[in-house]
Amino acid sequence: MMRADRWLLPDGIEEVLPPEARQIEVLRRHLLDLLDHWGYDMVIPPALEYLDSLLTGTGKDLDLRTFKVTDQLSGRMMGLSADTTPQVARIDAHSLAPEGVSRLAYCRTVFHAKAPSLLASRTPTQIGAELYGEAGVAADVEIISLMVAMINKAGIKQIHLDLGHVGVFRALADKAGISAEQQAELFALLKLKCASDLDAWADRELNDPSLCEAFKLLTRLQGDRKLLDESIARLAQLVPETSAELQHIQQVTDQLAMRFPRTPFYFDLTELRGYDYHTGLVFAAYVPGYGDAIAQGGRYDETGAVFGRARPATGFSADLKVLSRFGSVAADTKQTVVAPGNDDPQLWAKVQQLREQGYRVLVQLNAETIPADQTLQLLDGQWQLVEA
Amino acid sequence: MMRADRWLLPDGIEEVLPPEARQIEVLRRHLLDLLDHWGYDMVIPPALEYLDSLLTGTGKDLDLRTFKVTDQLSGRMMGLSADTTPQVARIDAHSLAPEGVSRLAYCRTVFHAKAPSLLASRTPTQIGAELYGEAGVAADVEIISLMVAMINKAGIKQIHLDLGHVGVFRALADKAGISAEQQAELFALLKLKCASDLDAWADRELNDPSLCEAFKLLTRLQGDRKLLDESIARLAQLVPETSAELQHIQQVTDQLAMRFPRTPFYFDLTELRGYDYHTGLVFAAYVPGYGDAIAQGGRYDETGAVFGRARPATGFSADLKVLSRFGSVAADTKQTVVAPGNDDPQLWAKVQQLREQGYRVLVQLNAETIPADQTLQLLDGQWQLVEA
Repeated sequence: MMRADRWLLPDGIEEVLPPEARQIEVLRRHLLDLLDHWGYDMVIPPALEYLDSLLTGTGKDLDLRTFKVTDQLSGRMMGLSADTTPQVARIDAHSLAPEGVSRLAYCRTVFHAKAPSLLASRTPTQIGAELYGEAGVAADVEIISLMVAMINKAGIKQIHLDLGHVGVFRALADKAGISAEQQAELFALLKLKCASDLDAWADRELNDPSLCEAFKLLTRLQGDRKLLDESIARLAQLVPETSAELQHIQQVTDQLAMRFPRTPFYFDLTELRGYDYHTGLVFAAYVPGYGDAIAQGGRYDETGAVFGRARPATGFSADLKVLSRFGSVAADTKQTVVAPGNDDPQLWAKVQQLREQGYRVLVQLNAETIPADQTLQLLDGQWQLVEA
Repeated sequence: MMRADRWLLPDGIEEVLPPEARQIEVLRRHLLDLLDHWGYDMVIPPALEYLDSLLTGTGKDLDLRTFKVTDQLSGRMMGLSADTTPQVARIDAHSLAPEGVSRLAYCRTVFHAKAPSLLASRTPTQIGAELYGEAGVAADVEIISLMVAMINKAGIKQIHLDLGHVGVFRALADKAGISAEQQAELFALLKLKCASDLDAWADRELNDPSLCEAFKLLTRLQGDRKLLDESIARLAQLVPETSAELQHIQQVTDQLAMRFPRTPFYFDLTELRGYDYHTGLVFAAYVPGYGDAIAQGGRYDETGAVFGRARPATGFSADLKVLSRFGSVAADTKQTVVAPGNDDPQLWAKVQQLREQGYRVLVQLNAETIPADQTLQLLDGQWQLVEA
């Protein structure tokens, strides 16, 4: 290997240098404090776990994204955490096992064997929150409000939010009794969000005219909430099994619109991200000029069941480094005080005192020159700050 | 797999629950701020790298401790970082490449395939600092002072520090021309710190009487600095090649004793931790009741060379979770304000305002009961804080 190769980093893996690392640290504190102020308690899930615990009930997608290693102590397979949410669900279900509602938050590195998109890091710093024990509209409103508040706190303007509900699609698919093969085809079509292709599919595959019309309505149920009342009412009429879910997403959207009047909320019932994992309302925030969501989440009511406790659950996460890139929280850059290299115990005492007070004090080593805002000088027998 | 097994964690891997997770977060901020106040710039090295970059010049011990995975994108082997120091050396040598001195700090999870000791975590949160570009006494004094300051900041009392110098042993071994086999035997004896065994070894293996006496002196050069002047002088006289190193460690110890008069500093020239990696002064801090060092470091002047730039280098690291366990920095527990579940926009505004001001406000979801220090109540048409 040539010397020049030694510092090539793998694709999707990055190092963070000064001052950006400090900027990310400052943002981290703002956001963790925000989560704390909303009543979310911090947890630190293990970075590495037995694969059985890590991938239970999480679907195939996460399996493919998970790095696997052998535990030399037990001979068992372990995986690096690729997503914090299932681990926090385990902590809620087993380690904490509280009565009633619990609110948990986290911030840590996760690892992706394959990045979920071309833009995404393979070692994102995942920050997020999870809310357990409550399935109602108020819980969804709280968690989405918190996500918006977090994005605002990062100084990111001009976001828009997409809201979907996998329960609506699930109800339609159940009623139509579509096969796994049909579902795969349908997912591909919905991903392209092309109405004419979906219409052709529905005409070809579905005999029941109500169901056929209902599936066609899915691609029309995208866009500004206010313009969709008629289509929503029609869908609920065609397939009454969808009406509870449709009412739920309407109520959530209306309450959010009141709280965040300047943030556009879009309906998108074709959005089926994490379909094998999510069970209800799903949501994602976008900014102009970035193809991936900058934060996303959804309801996943059954995950805790494999750990002995099925709980209503909803949550969201984001990559702290992405929030920092699109946000406007700066590093808390301090003025630099330079002290001379000198064994005088009084200088050491003064330097320590200034550092205690929050000054950034560098002591000159032998041959060093440091750009200084202020220097420490011995004046009248006392070490004093002097503007440089 | 039975349900009860699903939440067993691998040995040496832990989850952190509330309120301990917040306590660690608070300590993390104190310590990173301390490093910043001393002029150390934060960096975030990659958690995962090509093995060639990660293990270059770091010795076999780190190789054995490193988890390896295949990069699905390039087909090359990658390793999870088991030690931050060589990565920061790479950042200094290549990514920053500054003239003169550079001071860098970090805090992140590292991964050990095998824990370095029975007590140690396999996913420690490594926090530390590195100082590049200066080889003199002042640099060693600065980095050890910073380590002591960090331990003090964590609220850990009653530490003692061991200082060694692998250069002294290296000079003796070079002069005696001992073989790799002899060296391995010697290392095992020195680890046991048993004077009589070492004496027998020296009598058997070394013909030169000066060298024989010099090696025997090594186990006598342990303990309180003040009691060792005579033995140090004798060693320098027997093998003059050690005198520069001995003078260096004496000067460093004397300056530290002035700065930290209440901290005991011990000499230990049998301490050869990281011998294939360190090049000069090595040091470690201990507390009563814990067999491992709670923080440790040393000089490693050549690591950057493989990345094109050999630089004088010294640094230290600790496990943040261990510092939190032995320290006395508590979580910043706040009083809890409970607001009723209510759609009133004025309540939402009041709740947001209180959170901005640093209050911890939980909004009641439907069936939730929350222990409250204060509640928000509508009095005279205004939402007001009321003691619970």
